[in-house]
Amino acid sequence: MAEHEMLDEWIEQEGPMTEVVVSSRARLARNLKGVPFSPRANESQRQFVAQRVRQAFEQHDELAGYHQLDLASLPADERVRLRESHLISREMEKGGVGRVVLLGPRMDTSVMVNEEDHLRMSVLVSGFRVEEAHRRILAMEEKLEQSLPFAYSEKFGYLTACPTNTGTGLRLSVMLHLPALVMTEQIERTMSPLGSFGLVVRGAYGEHSEHTGDLFQISNEVTLGKTEQQIMEILNEVVRQVIDRELAARQALREQARIKLEDIVCRAVGLLSSARMIDSNEATALLSRARLGVGQSWCSIPLDHARLSRLFIEVQPAHLQFREETQSPEERDLVRAEMLRAMFGEN
Amino acid sequence: MAEHEMLDEWIEQEGPMTEVVVSSRARLARNLKGVPFSPRANESQRQFVAQRVRQAFEQHDELAGYHQLDLASLPADERVRLRESHLISREMEKGGVGRVVLLGPRMDTSVMVNEEDHLRMSVLVSGFRVEEAHRRILAMEEKLEQSLPFAYSEKFGYLTACPTNTGTGLRLSVMLHLPALVMTEQIERTMSPLGSFGLVVRGAYGEHSEHTGDLFQISNEVTLGKTEQQIMEILNEVVRQVIDRELAARQALREQARIKLEDIVCRAVGLLSSARMIDSNEATALLSRARLGVGQSWCSIPLDHARLSRLFIEVQPAHLQFREETQSPEERDLVRAEMLRAMFGEN
Repeated sequence: MAEHEMLDEWIEQEGPMTEVVVSSRARLARNLKGVPFSPRANESQRQFVAQRVRQAFEQHDELAGYHQLDLASLPADERVRLRESHLISREMEKGGVGRVVLLGPRMDTSVMVNEEDHLRMSVLVSGFRVEEAHRRILAMEEKLEQSLPFAYSEKFGYLTACPTNTGTGLRLSVMLHLPALVMTEQIERTMSPLGSFGLVVRGAYGEHSEHTGDLFQISNEVTLGKTEQQIMEILNEVVRQVIDRELAARQALREQARIKLEDIVCRAVGLLSSARMIDSNEATALLSRARLGVGQSWCSIPLDHARLSRLFIEVQPAHLQFREETQSPEERDLVRAEMLRAMFGEN
Repeated sequence: MAEHEMLDEWIEQEGPMTEVVVSSRARLARNLKGVPFSPRANESQRQFVAQRVRQAFEQHDELAGYHQLDLASLPADERVRLRESHLISREMEKGGVGRVVLLGPRMDTSVMVNEEDHLRMSVLVSGFRVEEAHRRILAMEEKLEQSLPFAYSEKFGYLTACPTNTGTGLRLSVMLHLPALVMTEQIERTMSPLGSFGLVVRGAYGEHSEHTGDLFQISNEVTLGKTEQQIMEILNEVVRQVIDRELAARQALREQARIKLEDIVCRAVGLLSSARMIDSNEATALLSRARLGVGQSWCSIPLDHARLSRLFIEVQPAHLQFREETQSPEERDLVRAEMLRAMFGEN
């Protein structure tokens, strides 16, 4: 518990955290007893699962504010937008019978129904707050467990479609912004040993996404044979080390290549405040560079770390499509540039 | 003369001219009777030529304000600066015995002594004013001819070291800014027929320079067998057609690819107002794009065409070295970026 308290104290130092950590997330995988896992279930079994989960939400006053979205009938662009917001997976984006997502009123909690598992609950919080995400996901699970009989084995723990999730069913992850480790070519060296701690590194948008915007997601890989406390401690400890390395790399750049760094940051801000067309990849890359200049006096950046983190999501195609009902990628490039100019102070 | 008046009237429409024409220049090649041409002259003969020219300048009150610079003793960076200002050639930049340059008080007139010919007089004016440059070079020559016996043949006209200059010894040239013809890939098509009119196209810095900044110099190639009036009429007519094409290309870009054009221009302005390090090639390329936006309401460009034309010269290395006594290319990149930010409104 001493470990836990120390960490909490460290979180209070909000500066270094939001500088590097975009968000923390907790996810729990659960399945209903007596029903085949979703990939092997037939349509009526999947619809049965969806029905049961919906009812469970309706039975709890505290879960009443949730939106129910039927992915089988939801337009494709809406599904993409949910994926861009990290609220559903690429697999769920495809839609399909019985696939439902329940979204918390503040859009930071979600339950995917009939993805790989019957239920995948998720809580997303800004900054480095793994404990808080964990606490909230357990509270949600507790409520749902009152109405839903989860498949559980004394020997293995919670049963899941994929063996890597069996046991606690818990996946904790942290999204990190690591531009200095990328710039100084230390990212490989930093990330490659993480596998030996049972951790896995992905891009901002899951397993096959590239590290656009210098965003990296670190999460635990296996939940079987470990307690939730162990998973959390390992992740927190490793992420803390990665944060320290990133901060050290930024410090070194500021000391040893200050003008070069300032040039990179300010050129990015210059382009964000002047471009008339910009695609999501370029926007993300420029936002990443601009984020390195927050809190420095190099050039005017009228946004804080948290706002810039949100912008990584808001510049994605479906978000822009929703924002302005744009029709084509070209139109979105205009709307994106306009939005960014307004944020960065039009040139 | 009707042709001449019409042209003058057209020049009054200053807009289209300064938009496209950076400068006009007239140059006369002359050699002293009875002395070998400079490349074949020995040191004492070259010193004799330099002495005679200096005396001629001293004899005329109207030429009294000229600076005399001995290139043999002038520091290398000063010589480079003169070349960047288009006041001396690459050949003269090398220095050497008897090589002298006489500079008019406003730095727009110069006489190179012992380049290829004994005298190469030059008048440089801003905008499309070939007649004015021509008029002024003739006035200068008239004064010098009172004291200097120029080599002249009844059959060939003025004798020069290279046969292409023999006859009138006159080279008229116009420096054009043609970004739209470059962007729309019409530049080859526009320039390649010019040879058949006895004209030649070069980059901003002479025969072997690239077209950095989309700057093109058009001049007459051969002076033998043509009157000065003929040379001027052909050049003016052809340049007018090139200007028309450039303006048409700009108009077409504004109509058919307005946002794309606006994006290119405003991004250039964004970088010019935010970069912390910038080399002369990038600066020249960005200035060329920014110049396309002057007079448009796309983004704030606090400089007019003439000022931007001057900047093409001021961002060159030796000019910056002179400005701030910078020692290394890296230092110059900082000073250049600082100067440009100040001009374009710091971001």
